[in-house]
Amino acid sequence: MSGLNVSPEIERLIALLAKLPGLGPRSARRAALDLLKKPNALMRPLALALGEAADRISTCQICGNVDAQNPCHICTAPGRDITTLCVVQDVADLWAMERAGAFRGRYHILGGTLSALDGIRPEDLNIASLIDRASHEDVKEVILAMNATVDGQTTAHYITDHLAKANVQVSRLAHGVPVGGELDYLDDGTISAAMKSRRPF
Amino acid sequence: MSGLNVSPEIERLIALLAKLPGLGPRSARRAALDLLKKPNALMRPLALALGEAADRISTCQICGNVDAQNPCHICTAPGRDITTLCVVQDVADLWAMERAGAFRGRYHILGGTLSALDGIRPEDLNIASLIDRASHEDVKEVILAMNATVDGQTTAHYITDHLAKANVQVSRLAHGVPVGGELDYLDDGTISAAMKSRRPF
Repeated sequence: MSGLNVSPEIERLIALLAKLPGLGPRSARRAALDLLKKPNALMRPLALALGEAADRISTCQICGNVDAQNPCHICTAPGRDITTLCVVQDVADLWAMERAGAFRGRYHILGGTLSALDGIRPEDLNIASLIDRASHEDVKEVILAMNATVDGQTTAHYITDHLAKANVQVSRLAHGVPVGGELDYLDDGTISAAMKSRRPF
Repeated sequence: MSGLNVSPEIERLIALLAKLPGLGPRSARRAALDLLKKPNALMRPLALALGEAADRISTCQICGNVDAQNPCHICTAPGRDITTLCVVQDVADLWAMERAGAFRGRYHILGGTLSALDGIRPEDLNIASLIDRASHEDVKEVILAMNATVDGQTTAHYITDHLAKANVQVSRLAHGVPVGGELDYLDDGTISAAMKSRRPF
């Protein structure tokens, strides 16, 4: 923030806000000003919420979810199906699955994907613990819900290979036309996949 | 965040982050996750910075700037020219002027612009205090640095009328081609203004 003639408190606030994903230096300044204009309505509540989250939220030792309890409320929910595991890259993907409400089993969060480019190897991800969980007699199916990117699919193949010894069915999400999607705007790969997986009407 | 199956601490954090300008619900979730992954590197420092800013920063009683001292460090700086006042809409504009380093006088922050549409009247802005300050014998020039929008210029005209009695010169920022700007991308109004205000080379 060189050249910005402000007090150190404001400078520090802007510098920290600029570290949030989605906020650059300019929007961090805007956010800081907005906070400074609402000390009691927004700034103090946000400070409190951050402090509470830092104190109370931890990573679930079983699935890798973030929650106020450990194991998390999904891993301990009595109503959820213990025979299926849905493997996702990140907590954000777990949230997306929960928003869709299409899965009532348990999750396993990898913490990323294998990537030769970024030097992310199998031991950097929660893959060993996944193999462990999948080998438990209760688990019948592992659903690989990684992103449909090259790295995501590479990771899915790697995991499928390593689940060969575990007595589970391995499945993946279907590829196809997104609901509400227009063919004209879809890439060729998606159209080919949708055509190949076509179903009787 | 209905449907998002998370603990109340996380839900509250996301809801507050989503109130920041520039962050929608989706980017607030991303920001919250990023914070949760960095409790000590980012979440606690941000909580602390917010708390400190809320405690220490106030609005300058003279110019309306936000600062750890009141009157602010610009109003009290001995090296700054006390004969010129630069009138800006918002603290962000004061920061922009300071970044440019093109003004060494003092500021007056209006807190917005007159707007019939939004029901913002002269008494909602810091206009009375500006007239007061401009009437002081030390002040020789008032520079109106409002945005070049309809509301900004309406406000500038209103202020000019009300400064008639004060014995000051009223000026405004020049209109013209932005430095580095290409004519082909400029609107007609800017090109006309630049042509009208052309200067000997």
